Amino acid sequence: MNHIDANAIADIARGAAVLGAGGGGDPHLGALMAERAITDSGPVRTVGLPDLPEDAVVLPVAIMGAPTVIVEKPPAGGEFAQAVRAVQTAYGSTITHIACFEAGGLNSMMPLVCAAETNLPLIDGDGMGRAFPELQMVLATLDGISTTPMAMVDDKGNTVLLDTVDNAWAEQLARSATVEMGCGACIALYPMTGREARKALVPDTVSLAGRLGRLLRATRGDHRDPVEALITETDGVILFHGRVTDVRRRTKAGFARGQAEIQGTGPDTGASMTLHFQNEHLLATRDGAVVASVPDLICVLEADTGEPITTEAMRYGFRVTVIGLPCHPRWRSPAGLALVGPSYFGYEHEYVPLDRLNTASIA
Amino acid sequence: MNHIDANAIADIARGAAVLGAGGGGDPHLGALMAERAITDSGPVRTVGLPDLPEDAVVLPVAIMGAPTVIVEKPPAGGEFAQAVRAVQTAYGSTITHIACFEAGGLNSMMPLVCAAETNLPLIDGDGMGRAFPELQMVLATLDGISTTPMAMVDDKGNTVLLDTVDNAWAEQLARSATVEMGCGACIALYPMTGREARKALVPDTVSLAGRLGRLLRATRGDHRDPVEALITETDGVILFHGRVTDVRRRTKAGFARGQAEIQGTGPDTGASMTLHFQNEHLLATRDGAVVASVPDLICVLEADTGEPITTEAMRYGFRVTVIGLPCHPRWRSPAGLALVGPSYFGYEHEYVPLDRLNTASIA
Repeated sequence: MNHIDANAIADIARGAAVLGAGGGGDPHLGALMAERAITDSGPVRTVGLPDLPEDAVVLPVAIMGAPTVIVEKPPAGGEFAQAVRAVQTAYGSTITHIACFEAGGLNSMMPLVCAAETNLPLIDGDGMGRAFPELQMVLATLDGISTTPMAMVDDKGNTVLLDTVDNAWAEQLARSATVEMGCGACIALYPMTGREARKALVPDTVSLAGRLGRLLRATRGDHRDPVEALITETDGVILFHGRVTDVRRRTKAGFARGQAEIQGTGPDTGASMTLHFQNEHLLATRDGAVVASVPDLICVLEADTGEPITTEAMRYGFRVTVIGLPCHPRWRSPAGLALVGPSYFGYEHEYVPLDRLNTASIA
Repeated sequence: MNHIDANAIADIARGAAVLGAGGGGDPHLGALMAERAITDSGPVRTVGLPDLPEDAVVLPVAIMGAPTVIVEKPPAGGEFAQAVRAVQTAYGSTITHIACFEAGGLNSMMPLVCAAETNLPLIDGDGMGRAFPELQMVLATLDGISTTPMAMVDDKGNTVLLDTVDNAWAEQLARSATVEMGCGACIALYPMTGREARKALVPDTVSLAGRLGRLLRATRGDHRDPVEALITETDGVILFHGRVTDVRRRTKAGFARGQAEIQGTGPDTGASMTLHFQNEHLLATRDGAVVASVPDLICVLEADTGEPITTEAMRYGFRVTVIGLPCHPRWRSPAGLALVGPSYFGYEHEYVPLDRLNTASIA
């Protein structure tokens, strides 16, 4: 992969929505916006992390806010170019590459929109290897890279530029600005050198997303089970088969929080699963026992098609298969778990890697 | 006046607290901070608006937030210099002069702290000729001067730099950032040329504040009535004599809002006054009839000493004299009244100039 054209968009968006673990925004909206940007500006060049010059200046971008609101209020156009210019001025170096801040349906697409708007190449990778709800939750934080200078631009054209004493303050100030901006803002943050990016970005996640998206599309035409095909491709585990019986959600302080109840079907008949989410799925329990938690990925797929379902799209009656995917190994370090483990989100559960929690299902 | 030394501080703070119309923060805290800054860095040079070069670059500064909170959480030092640097970078011109954003006890002093920290001269004037609760409420807005680039710096060292599509958006985004910053932030905003400043700043308010402060101090030693002396000096009117019987206040969305009830004494025995405030006094009614409103100044003074009382310091039992002072004439224009008149604050009262509302008392 050395460029992304309009034809590649839908697969990447769908595959990234799997990696988004329920978050990262609506893939269909994202795909439409990226297709329009690429039709206007031409294909986006891509660069793998091993080919990135050490003196490159990399800028991850995303949309921040409650996904439920972003669906109704997409960017107007030009916001990302404005955000890149603002960070560039404050950082004092010319930005040479755009990156994905996180993997996710919408947030895999926004960097394409930004790359098209700025005519800069996009890195094949992202800041988390998944989606997480807060800004400090990137590997870059583990490397001591600052969130700021960070720019936020809204659909009116307002810019907020942050320069904070730590990454948690960037999250706090940006979250309240996002709420004022109507619960959605285009953001550019964590400017870093190529040398830093090689360590702080998760490699190859854009091409992985494309591969997963193509796989899901291909299984429609043959007799393979799409979920089984995904599991094989990703070292994942099937956590649960069932039907959604209840979804409670509230948009609070710029987040979509809530929980979903799933009644077991097929091999899981008689059991029930509860999913807790804050934009992304954070914790899954089966009959009260934790079977997966952050930082591992908990992904909800349509049982028949394997289509990823975001937390905001989940509805009563959906027939789903819940799978778990292992997170990037750096998230399993003590520092990684302090930043994004279950206790950060208020759960008493002590993190156990997905594969050890579910030895039975992969035996 | 061509410089301000530590000895001049207390008078300016006291006089500016009169002009603050109940807002603009605590004069005693402000005076302490300015005295310390001037003791450390030497006297602050002052420049009158007529002497300001047309190509000067003027930057008004202040503290933003709920005054009740600022009293408990003053700046740590260095915040203003940091804010000036941030605006300077974004504005693209070297700042040559500091100005008062508003007149007020604390906010007449913060520009002195800033001028001392940056070794820049201070302009004898301010953005309003009084204090108002929101950022867009300066004469500069009437001239089409942008609030932004605007910098906000908190006591931790976080910087928020705003670049907004209009001045109302600057207020909205800055207000929520102020709340996140602990309800108090050092701000620098409305960078403007010397040519713009000559029209957009109210002249001579720093020296006026010093004169009023000296007058109040001088009347302690002789037999003059301090309030009468102030009225004579300022074209003001006495609105009410009484005793505070109730103060209801709440800090909400970064503002101190509320109302105060005053029972008449002396010539006003049997009557009552209600004051409505949002950081500053906005509207005064006597037995239900409006006797003064924004944009004119409503000032509450201790009956015996003439000491100005801020809205946050007002307490049950205080013996007070309420006076009205005429606002700058530009505030009485249709555009001025749209920005800061009673209807903006939700009152149905149609503005009538103070002197016409109170013809009896000045006859």
